[in-house]
Amino acid sequence: MSFHVYDTTLRDGAQQEGMNLSVTDKLAIAPLLDELGVGFIEGGWPGAVPKDTDFFARAATELTLKNSVLAAFGATRKVGLRASEDPQVLALLHSGAPVVTLVAKSDVRHAERALRTTAEENLAMITDTVAFLVGEGRRVVLDAEHFFDGYRFDAAYSRSAVLAAFEAGAEVVALCDTNGGMLPHWVTDIVGDVRAVVGPDAILGMHAHNDSGCAVANTLAAVDAGCSHVQGTINGYGERTGNADLITVVANLELKNGRTLLTGAGLTEASRIAHAISEITNISPYARQPYVGASAFAHKAGLHASAIKVDPDLYQHIDPRLVGNDMRMLISDMAGRATIELKGRELGFDLSGQGEVLTRITARVKEAEANGYTYDAADASFELLLIEEMMGERPQYFDVESWRTIVERHGHRGTVALAEATVKLEAGGERVVTTGEGNGPVNALDQALRLALTRIYPEIESFGLIDFKVRILDQMHGTDAVTRVLIETTDGQTSWSTVGVGPNILEASWEALTDSAIYGLIHAGVNPR
Amino acid sequence: MSFHVYDTTLRDGAQQEGMNLSVTDKLAIAPLLDELGVGFIEGGWPGAVPKDTDFFARAATELTLKNSVLAAFGATRKVGLRASEDPQVLALLHSGAPVVTLVAKSDVRHAERALRTTAEENLAMITDTVAFLVGEGRRVVLDAEHFFDGYRFDAAYSRSAVLAAFEAGAEVVALCDTNGGMLPHWVTDIVGDVRAVVGPDAILGMHAHNDSGCAVANTLAAVDAGCSHVQGTINGYGERTGNADLITVVANLELKNGRTLLTGAGLTEASRIAHAISEITNISPYARQPYVGASAFAHKAGLHASAIKVDPDLYQHIDPRLVGNDMRMLISDMAGRATIELKGRELGFDLSGQGEVLTRITARVKEAEANGYTYDAADASFELLLIEEMMGERPQYFDVESWRTIVERHGHRGTVALAEATVKLEAGGERVVTTGEGNGPVNALDQALRLALTRIYPEIESFGLIDFKVRILDQMHGTDAVTRVLIETTDGQTSWSTVGVGPNILEASWEALTDSAIYGLIHAGVNPR
Repeated sequence: MSFHVYDTTLRDGAQQEGMNLSVTDKLAIAPLLDELGVGFIEGGWPGAVPKDTDFFARAATELTLKNSVLAAFGATRKVGLRASEDPQVLALLHSGAPVVTLVAKSDVRHAERALRTTAEENLAMITDTVAFLVGEGRRVVLDAEHFFDGYRFDAAYSRSAVLAAFEAGAEVVALCDTNGGMLPHWVTDIVGDVRAVVGPDAILGMHAHNDSGCAVANTLAAVDAGCSHVQGTINGYGERTGNADLITVVANLELKNGRTLLTGAGLTEASRIAHAISEITNISPYARQPYVGASAFAHKAGLHASAIKVDPDLYQHIDPRLVGNDMRMLISDMAGRATIELKGRELGFDLSGQGEVLTRITARVKEAEANGYTYDAADASFELLLIEEMMGERPQYFDVESWRTIVERHGHRGTVALAEATVKLEAGGERVVTTGEGNGPVNALDQALRLALTRIYPEIESFGLIDFKVRILDQMHGTDAVTRVLIETTDGQTSWSTVGVGPNILEASWEALTDSAIYGLIHAGVNPR
Repeated sequence: MSFHVYDTTLRDGAQQEGMNLSVTDKLAIAPLLDELGVGFIEGGWPGAVPKDTDFFARAATELTLKNSVLAAFGATRKVGLRASEDPQVLALLHSGAPVVTLVAKSDVRHAERALRTTAEENLAMITDTVAFLVGEGRRVVLDAEHFFDGYRFDAAYSRSAVLAAFEAGAEVVALCDTNGGMLPHWVTDIVGDVRAVVGPDAILGMHAHNDSGCAVANTLAAVDAGCSHVQGTINGYGERTGNADLITVVANLELKNGRTLLTGAGLTEASRIAHAISEITNISPYARQPYVGASAFAHKAGLHASAIKVDPDLYQHIDPRLVGNDMRMLISDMAGRATIELKGRELGFDLSGQGEVLTRITARVKEAEANGYTYDAADASFELLLIEEMMGERPQYFDVESWRTIVERHGHRGTVALAEATVKLEAGGERVVTTGEGNGPVNALDQALRLALTRIYPEIESFGLIDFKVRILDQMHGTDAVTRVLIETTDGQTSWSTVGVGPNILEASWEALTDSAIYGLIHAGVNPR
């Protein structure tokens, strides 16, 4: 029996708070899912959601899928209508999707209170709709909504809903933990019961939500108990706490249970694909996400760094390359020489023979961290420090004479304050004086600096600030509080982070801004003029 | 046998990428953990990390814990030293913590390759260190590092490490999935094996990481198999993918398995406490976090909206009030009144009879939160809002005409930047113009404002800024980023927190500074002059 990996990012994932996918977004995500190699891509609810109707219409001509088939999601027929006369059911048929996934009530309370019909009519709705679509040549998946809660309330009724679907010709019945409250041992027991009732050949599926923090484990428990169809979403997107994170589920099943589930590029492209999808959904990636998160293989503890260098497999549950991710060493005050050597290697600097340089860098990092700097989120600043210690100094692109910011507000609460900044510097033999405006002093400083440098280094035009974080650090060495600023800059293709520290937020920001410009120019291959 | 809830936010949680907790941060988080009612608070590694040594020293005089005891974390003695002569072990003793948690190798490969010692010496290190600390009157928890990986490689050795600890007098042995790669059925099998070996009375614990996305489920599996001590962190903070999310673990065990584990305020305060801690760590809360996340009980309107109104329990796995959270309908407004009524009561305002005021306040809070305000950590601003809605307006102590800040630096990196601020306002019938200087623009503004007000309201002389936090909030309503500032002010006896929000950091700071002055004057019993 083949195993189904069923992605519902475009339908259930899109229910996430703050997510709003356009047809174009969906048409951009589907090829990535196909590339990953999922078996099924649930595209939306044609007939009920106008843009989903458009998606299926455009997909028919614009999408060429190699590994996946499209599924159209919809509901069983309305109470009292014939399936063949229900416009919502006909829209599913007309979507052209080879697979139709029908959501049906399998909790008797939902049939009675939400649909306001009888338990019997609900079963007839399942039978009729499945039989009609199968008769029209569609493969049908039945999503048994609220199955687990229903089963714990009235098991016989929930089972009869599953049996009705299989008897009418459904290929799969997916058992849904719609409210997400299940715990793994409940799933084990209930799926085991259902498996005994439906026999060994029926394909059962699992659809889990993460409200108990167990979506992945519940899916694994269901597979162990006999499910061979798993539903989930990329990055665990979904309503409330989200759906089961499909990549985590698949990685556990492939890398730890020895199955082969994906038919495309597979897990080695998982990190890239997960991040590419988060670019399209415009939802910041979650650094702590299992397998594909930016922090998933990042190590901070100095304690372990020397051992990690010798034997990385003792400190990671899998080789990160298996999911297209990388081990990263974070530079922190707990770091020793071994961490810094590894970090250097990651950035392309071989420090292995250079004991003296390594000692100097380690000492500088420790001193800087004692003063409030942090390099674990500021790779670019750390690289500038490495370059300084290895080359003797950093490239001198410009020489700052002075800068000034003025922020003022006239009038009462609600009146807008104005910010401007003036920068005076020398670059390429020219003295430049520029003024920038912004909605705040850092923004104004950034404008003025970029204006001043663009004249000499036009490459800087493509750089833009994308993130700015501020942290007040108290009592460093019992003196006054200092401010730490982290900024992230992009050139449109890649991004880098720099850090600045000072008693004054604008001084700290200025340091991070100028370091960012220098790093960007070095990496653009520009020589000081 | 009592059940242990063991929090390691301050130690293992602080290993998270980008987290850097000061001693003050730790001293602010510990009372929140105590209020939640965890049994144990692991504070750090005295002796190895200087600021952790400071934490325990200051905790001895500055912290009064009602429900929790402090645990100092450290390692077993060094190879070849006596425990009583190992400075690292002595530092644990001298920290004054009643509980010492020792990390020890329980994977023979780690003993040999990371410690570079023999299997036997590693066991002797466990025995000696536990026996020494128990002999000195400490309760000892042994964290058996890499236990599960070790067990799958050489079960006999891993078991012998556990037995050595118990025989030497350890109260608990916590089995650690240090690399986080376990799946629940492996945990079930291994903990079951260990339970059979150690007998029914030994206290076994579980320490899980989330690398397989199963930290919560692995912890639950361990409890089912006989662990009665669970370790975790608030918000699942921790290295790589983080530790088990302690609130999710406890909520599953209390609300779904009917246990009572917390001894303090308990789960009904969990959402507030989790968010308050994220304000201190300055790590953005994760909206999809189970139980306490902002989206955890948020329903996108559509299919279910009307049914949810009639019968919310059909659509949520638990009543969100049990964890201090609220159901939110993403298009309508039906939550929050109860929370606000409770918060009002906490501040001494009885709003129970006042439906209309409550409705107005709820609407204002919702609007303000949508614009980036947060009142979780700004009780004083919330109280000013309450006063405005109850009295019609807030007391008018002064009337601001304008303010301006100038920050400038002449010369190179290393030269100090100067900040000054000028404030013009009217108070007590006088127009006042003052200039303040500071090491940054907010500091200068604070100086100028206090100078201006002290002339009319000498009470303000005793007020001082003690904390200042800044967070950049992106994409509120798809517009530009806004800045949120939280400040804490003291009059020497008590302290209060206010919030300001704006596109400009100084504008946001000004709002928080003026609110702070007004709140301080009201509570000093001063009338507007």
